[in-house]
Amino acid sequence: MTVRGPEGSLHIPEGYRFASATAGIKQSGRQDLALAEAPFGASAAAVFTRNRVVAAPLIVDRANLKKSAGRVRAVVVNSGNANCATGKRGIAATEHVCAAVGTALEVAPEFIFPSSTGIIGVQLPVEKVTAAVPDLVSARAEGEQAFRAFAEAIMTTDTKVKIATAYFEMGNRKVKIAAACKGSGMIHPDLATMLVYIFTDVSGSPAQLDRALRSAVEVSFNAMSVDGDTSTNDTVLLLANGASDVKLGAAGVAKKFQNCLVEVCQSLAEQVIRDGEGAKHLIRLQIEQARSVAEARQVARSIANSPLVKTAWAGCDPNWGRILSSVGKSGVDVSPEKVNIFIGKQQVCRAGMVGSFDANAVHELMKQREYDIRVQLGRGRAELTFLTCDLTTEYVHINADYST
Amino acid sequence: MTVRGPEGSLHIPEGYRFASATAGIKQSGRQDLALAEAPFGASAAAVFTRNRVVAAPLIVDRANLKKSAGRVRAVVVNSGNANCATGKRGIAATEHVCAAVGTALEVAPEFIFPSSTGIIGVQLPVEKVTAAVPDLVSARAEGEQAFRAFAEAIMTTDTKVKIATAYFEMGNRKVKIAAACKGSGMIHPDLATMLVYIFTDVSGSPAQLDRALRSAVEVSFNAMSVDGDTSTNDTVLLLANGASDVKLGAAGVAKKFQNCLVEVCQSLAEQVIRDGEGAKHLIRLQIEQARSVAEARQVARSIANSPLVKTAWAGCDPNWGRILSSVGKSGVDVSPEKVNIFIGKQQVCRAGMVGSFDANAVHELMKQREYDIRVQLGRGRAELTFLTCDLTTEYVHINADYST
Repeated sequence: MTVRGPEGSLHIPEGYRFASATAGIKQSGRQDLALAEAPFGASAAAVFTRNRVVAAPLIVDRANLKKSAGRVRAVVVNSGNANCATGKRGIAATEHVCAAVGTALEVAPEFIFPSSTGIIGVQLPVEKVTAAVPDLVSARAEGEQAFRAFAEAIMTTDTKVKIATAYFEMGNRKVKIAAACKGSGMIHPDLATMLVYIFTDVSGSPAQLDRALRSAVEVSFNAMSVDGDTSTNDTVLLLANGASDVKLGAAGVAKKFQNCLVEVCQSLAEQVIRDGEGAKHLIRLQIEQARSVAEARQVARSIANSPLVKTAWAGCDPNWGRILSSVGKSGVDVSPEKVNIFIGKQQVCRAGMVGSFDANAVHELMKQREYDIRVQLGRGRAELTFLTCDLTTEYVHINADYST
Repeated sequence: MTVRGPEGSLHIPEGYRFASATAGIKQSGRQDLALAEAPFGASAAAVFTRNRVVAAPLIVDRANLKKSAGRVRAVVVNSGNANCATGKRGIAATEHVCAAVGTALEVAPEFIFPSSTGIIGVQLPVEKVTAAVPDLVSARAEGEQAFRAFAEAIMTTDTKVKIATAYFEMGNRKVKIAAACKGSGMIHPDLATMLVYIFTDVSGSPAQLDRALRSAVEVSFNAMSVDGDTSTNDTVLLLANGASDVKLGAAGVAKKFQNCLVEVCQSLAEQVIRDGEGAKHLIRLQIEQARSVAEARQVARSIANSPLVKTAWAGCDPNWGRILSSVGKSGVDVSPEKVNIFIGKQQVCRAGMVGSFDANAVHELMKQREYDIRVQLGRGRAELTFLTCDLTTEYVHINADYST
């Protein structure tokens, strides 16, 4: 199994149609409305932001999934406006969009899954969206080109389209997964959010999909950080329409599907970090010898969200003292004298003290676009790979040089 | 009571002697060794970093204070080397310094309180320190000039000396407090730490001082953040030598002393934030309507440590959506529809939605060197003032542009 995307030909599952349109929300005039449809419906599972400030579409998503018992006919995404901090009027606006799409597809509004991304605190121009729905619906098409158009229309400040697709075989049948994603810092100048849509033609119940999705998210989107901020709109959705005739519950399927799903999610996570605002380096933090994966994640986040560590990476500086200090402040009860740190293959810290390493070689390695940092905690056998990036002056420019 | 320092004439308590010297640890050739002595001894209380990675002097400090039952004769501080991540050899080096100073002052080593600040992971050049001890001891003097020399010798990357002094009267007696501090990010390129030394001539037991100090630290040094990083060497020490003949336990003294101590600590906290690496703005976050001070602090830290909020401040951008989102991700169970946010007197967010405000006026206010942001949580009656600063490209330069 090889993950394909965004370049090359893609593995698009059967039984989905995609479309995009221009509603006029984005001032740039770019496409800002996207549709994905499962004409015969699909089972769905979704995970949402843990932020207490939650955008209107997420509130409607939860209600719709409950009412439809986890069935989705279509996803509708607008970019350019997050519909967040917009109160009851914002919720009514989202419901209005669902009703318009539902009417066009001749289905009840609870089978529509809405998303929004863009500026916070400004009411959604709902008439612009509903006016564009007929165009959107008539543009529906199967295949790669339509899927790419969907992936492009959900972008806001992303500099690159983010797509990952894969498949596995069961006898003479193929199960495909295609996923599109947007996100590059967590919140750009007023523009928010990571949105992930994963489409597959496996056959599964909402409960089966939920287990598969949560497990895959833990080792992908929950194992990365650009700047430690959590958006108000973050959403990961998995749809399964059963068009492959392969059942998730059949012998041998669940494991293959899970591997495939994890690879797709991890590929998207890497694409997000590579497109991180101002990021010059992707760092793969390998936390080893933790007592649990949760503990490994806590240490990884403490390192990945330290401005001092991230700026040292920007300067290609093998400053292991800052990494060690971040391990120490993580809240995990580490014994510093058991901590080892490696940058690439060079051991920069041994037993909590300076290791033996060639500083020039490490400095050269840190000039690479991507490299590994391995941290051993000496506490147990759990481990986690966590993706992050450096903090550059460009990040500050992107997020500060904005005048209202 | 007015706090004085660093400018103007200072209130220096009776019965202390200060000194500084050049041991040759700093490559700049600046003074890097400082001494503060209470010739008749003093009661002591100290708080230390919560980082699990703890520098050698802090380990020795804890042991010495235990052995001496909270009595201190002299403080010795070296700048230029943190003596952190240096293992058993680092601890032996600190003990050696204590022995040398103890011998010179004719006192057992457990009455010496050592501190170090500077580069991490490099062994302390202990011979350089001990060789400078005779010079240091013979330079001891009372009064303002010697105190200023002490405050200057403990600096590393600080661009300004940090001093706060105050006094209060009980009948015809004066109780004075003089404090010196160093710190500007939490950890500069390999250079670490906030160190605070508070000297008073009140009379009190170590237990009384401990209560007073912990309470003052909560509303000063624990209510501020430059970059969310916690150093391995952070230390706040309070010494009381009783020279004023005013007892902390006497009627009316404790409250006056506490007020005085808090003002001194808050003044130093402000000086640290104003000297924050690359900081262009000091922001006074006023968190109101929390259920507890701990909860208010949790929200304040979530705001103050958000790179997106801090970069918006750098750009003088009244981006209340980022502040609201940081409140939402704080882990406190806020109801967004109860949250109000004010920048200066302008309400930028009302009930979790956009407030009514003059964007130009807010933008102008945010160009000021210092201003207030008030966040009401709608949960209770606790409040906290928390100091922080913006995140500028200069911060990244300072911390990244360093080549090994």
